[in-house]
Amino acid sequence: MGQTIRQIAAALGVRAEGDLDLMVLRAAEPAQAGPDDLALAMDQKYAGGLAQGKARAAVLWEDADWQGLGLQAAIFVGRPRLAMSGITRSFDAGPELAPGVHPLAVVDSSAHIGAGAAIGPFVVIGRDVRIGTRARIASHASIAEGAVIGEDALIHAGVRICHHVTIGDRLIAQPGAIIGSDGFSFVTPEKSGVEVVRSTLGERDEIRAQSWIRIHSVGGVEIGDDVEIGANATIDRGTIRATRIGRGTKLDNLVHVGHNVQVGQDCLLCGQVGIAGSSRIGDRVVLGGQCGVSDNIIVGNDVIAGGASKIFTNVPAGRVILGSPAVRMETQIEINKALRRLPRLMQTVAELRKIVTGSVQKDGADQEGT
Amino acid sequence: MGQTIRQIAAALGVRAEGDLDLMVLRAAEPAQAGPDDLALAMDQKYAGGLAQGKARAAVLWEDADWQGLGLQAAIFVGRPRLAMSGITRSFDAGPELAPGVHPLAVVDSSAHIGAGAAIGPFVVIGRDVRIGTRARIASHASIAEGAVIGEDALIHAGVRICHHVTIGDRLIAQPGAIIGSDGFSFVTPEKSGVEVVRSTLGERDEIRAQSWIRIHSVGGVEIGDDVEIGANATIDRGTIRATRIGRGTKLDNLVHVGHNVQVGQDCLLCGQVGIAGSSRIGDRVVLGGQCGVSDNIIVGNDVIAGGASKIFTNVPAGRVILGSPAVRMETQIEINKALRRLPRLMQTVAELRKIVTGSVQKDGADQEGT
Amino acid sequence: MGQTIRQIAAALGVRAEGDLDLMVLRAAEPAQAGPDDLALAMDQKYAGGLAQGKARAAVLWEDADWQGLGLQAAIFVGRPRLAMSGITRSFDAGPELAPGVHPLAVVDSSAHIGAGAAIGPFVVIGRDVRIGTRARIASHASIAEGAVIGEDALIHAGVRICHHVTIGDRLIAQPGAIIGSDGFSFVTPEKSGVEVVRSTLGERDEIRAQSWIRIHSVGGVEIGDDVEIGANATIDRGTIRATRIGRGTKLDNLVHVGHNVQVGQDCLLCGQVGIAGSSRIGDRVVLGGQCGVSDNIIVGNDVIAGGASKIFTNVPAGRVILGSPAVRMETQIEINKALRRLPRLMQTVAELRKIVTGSVQKDGADQEGT
Repeated sequence: MGQTIRQIAAALGVRAEGDLDLMVLRAAEPAQAGPDDLALAMDQKYAGGLAQGKARAAVLWEDADWQGLGLQAAIFVGRPRLAMSGITRSFDAGPELAPGVHPLAVVDSSAHIGAGAAIGPFVVIGRDVRIGTRARIASHASIAEGAVIGEDALIHAGVRICHHVTIGDRLIAQPGAIIGSDGFSFVTPEKSGVEVVRSTLGERDEIRAQSWIRIHSVGGVEIGDDVEIGANATIDRGTIRATRIGRGTKLDNLVHVGHNVQVGQDCLLCGQVGIAGSSRIGDRVVLGGQCGVSDNIIVGNDVIAGGASKIFTNVPAGRVILGSPAVRMETQIEINKALRRLPRLMQTVAELRKIVTGSVQKDGADQEGT
Repeated sequence: MGQTIRQIAAALGVRAEGDLDLMVLRAAEPAQAGPDDLALAMDQKYAGGLAQGKARAAVLWEDADWQGLGLQAAIFVGRPRLAMSGITRSFDAGPELAPGVHPLAVVDSSAHIGAGAAIGPFVVIGRDVRIGTRARIASHASIAEGAVIGEDALIHAGVRICHHVTIGDRLIAQPGAIIGSDGFSFVTPEKSGVEVVRSTLGERDEIRAQSWIRIHSVGGVEIGDDVEIGANATIDRGTIRATRIGRGTKLDNLVHVGHNVQVGQDCLLCGQVGIAGSSRIGDRVVLGGQCGVSDNIIVGNDVIAGGASKIFTNVPAGRVILGSPAVRMETQIEINKALRRLPRLMQTVAELRKIVTGSVQKDGADQEGT
Repeated sequence: MGQTIRQIAAALGVRAEGDLDLMVLRAAEPAQAGPDDLALAMDQKYAGGLAQGKARAAVLWEDADWQGLGLQAAIFVGRPRLAMSGITRSFDAGPELAPGVHPLAVVDSSAHIGAGAAIGPFVVIGRDVRIGTRARIASHASIAEGAVIGEDALIHAGVRICHHVTIGDRLIAQPGAIIGSDGFSFVTPEKSGVEVVRSTLGERDEIRAQSWIRIHSVGGVEIGDDVEIGANATIDRGTIRATRIGRGTKLDNLVHVGHNVQVGQDCLLCGQVGIAGSSRIGDRVVLGGQCGVSDNIIVGNDVIAGGASKIFTNVPAGRVILGSPAVRMETQIEINKALRRLPRLMQTVAELRKIVTGSVQKDGADQEGT
């Protein structure tokens, strides 16, 4: 794992100074760095940390005085987070997976596994599965009949890729991710309470006792290139057409994508986001942690939703939203400010009314339980 | 998988016309349908799609002119979603599981597996487990000692059914579902901050440093017939009595059901719903995606909660609720409307006060951080 | 599993009366208890249940008249929930795991497993793993290279402990828990929409189409003693430094802890809580079910957050909070009351304005969609 400063700077395509042959073994925070570490100090505020630590080499902000900081070598970067990508990649050995197929894996004879694959113990690969070259599949993963996966896949332990799912190149699936479970789709013989309430916004004349009948999911899941799926995330297959995740989109842990959902390209769905059935998410959409999207909703391109936003209505392209129900972020920030003053506002209005009408009226009779 | 129009119409119990011996291989959306597909066009709005596609047969709305639509055969249905159930079922081959017990499954000799079962590779079945006839158990599932499962179970890959869980007939467990994990139940030696705050609604005189002591879960989980559990959903066992899920209830992906919870019959718990310990949910309750139910709450029969509703207090039977905290849906819709106008309302009140009292007072001093 | 009343009282360190040699086989609720059960009736309100049931022995409140209740023996406790801990522990046999290493486990020859361990079928243990004495590791778990786990670990089925994770003594990991998945950390070549919006609170001049570049996670996860991780919970590894969970902290099912997060000691993170990257949670913090913590937030010691609270800003030590965005619990309760009266308030203000200004103005023009 050792690398020289020269190698790292070259990989990042940036400038380095000092002893370019100095070898470093890992990246570290400035204050914790030892003499064999590369300290990551891409902002002036880390200068103090560098002084505490023992690093001989560091990644620094662009006009830093590396000699004044007591270093023997330094790499200079402009956009720190971007540099982090290259630096962490160069130090990431990835999970250890011996090349070849483990003797305790069960691989169907009709499956086609590309050259250079590493398949761990207790992996199951079904009939007619096709997996591209250099796939790394960790222990306990299962890939069911007819699934197709592109090149350079990294499939961590316990991932489930269900039957006939198709996935592009460079998939990363974190442990426990499930791709292609059945959709959650049920119907009652007669109109259900949910159908009634959706049309009346809450009114119900009559309540019927009915059981749910299953709508099966005979569609698949289609995933583009360069997609990452988080730990224990779940993606349901479509009813008739496929559920789709576009190229370059990343899903965090415990994200739920319902049946028939279409997610565009280059989206980020952060931790615990849930998207209900048949909704369509555009390209480059960012949904913060714990956001929810109701079913059959359209979220336009480039929408950004703050954490825990709940989206019940269509969102035009480019909008930045927040809250539950989600509204424009600026509006929500104003609402939040106003909310904190709301109890006081009620007092003020009561006082005004007293002055204006000359009488006090009780204003609590309409309190409402759940 | 090929079926004739006659067979499908008979299975649905509905009327068909045209060439009833026409064979179709799969269901498809009208515009994407090929000549061997059955186009699903149960509403007039799909007529255009039919014209684009190449289907020779379709499922149509009841008074459709099938010949005018250029079809050779047609099936007519009244309630489209209900028809979807029968149609998708007839085309769902289900997961491929070879009959018999895979040589790399570990089945305890005391376990009783019903006739016709299919048990996949790397399955573990413990002591005294009883599983009904025709069970299909996919790879990597584990069923621990003393668990009892009825007939026709479909248990997908990686499902965990923990010790002494009992389940009725026709269970469907999606991949990664966990039934019978330990409850989350802890106690401090002296009153905890949570106990204090619950009684005072926020006030605390004194803060003690205490560690949490575990309350073990020696109750089980009891699940009725016709229950489906979603991918990576979790159901905790009870402390003393069993956690219960009633007949016909369906849980979506990533749903969490806490210890001692009682869920009635024919409920739908949508994606990422969470129910805290010891709450009781009635029959035919529908909780939309990401709903939460606090602990020790009673939710009555036939309650419907919109997505992301958070239920902190008991809910009477039949009520339709929304919001956080959840209130009647109509009330919440009014509140939501009012909220968007709240910043403007504050201005209006400030202006009124100015007019009425003849003086301007500052109204920002009571702003509150978190 | 049988125990005498004397044994149980001694284990609890409390007083018992009557036939102390009476043997009980399990704990039960009073009304359901049979003659071999120990009824748990720690409050006067259970007296009626005792009369319905058939228990000969019970755990009672401190000044209960056990003979008047028709019992042959009784144990008396002061703090019922605390007693529950000892009683349930004494009746919890735990999962059945045969001692030794199952022949179908794959244990790397360099791994060190402490004495008395039980390792189930289809377990995978990687290179240089170290596990303390008396570990119990259920089927299908995987522990990757370099991981270190202390004594008396109980690791349930299908748990994933990723490479180089370090964990203290007495770990309990419920089924499907994942410790050490990669962090969700991505960067765009130029400033992303999220970065712009964070600085402007919603304004964007220009929208760029960019793809996400991965920041790898080369940090680990460090977990203290006496930690419990819930079913299907996920803990991401750090980017450079480790993600940390302090001694005595308990995580419930489906909790998500992002990369670089630091959680203190003796915290409770209830079901489906999510903590975004790089946030710091103090000691003895309690986050109710479905709470969310935004990234880079500091939550002080002894903070208690009610269910579904969403924390967007730092929280001072000792504060009790509620709501989304979370504010002091008292404030939120007032806000909630006011919200229910908000539609009426708007009417009142409209009426006042009419009186004061002598004219009616329309106040709906500023309604805002999402």
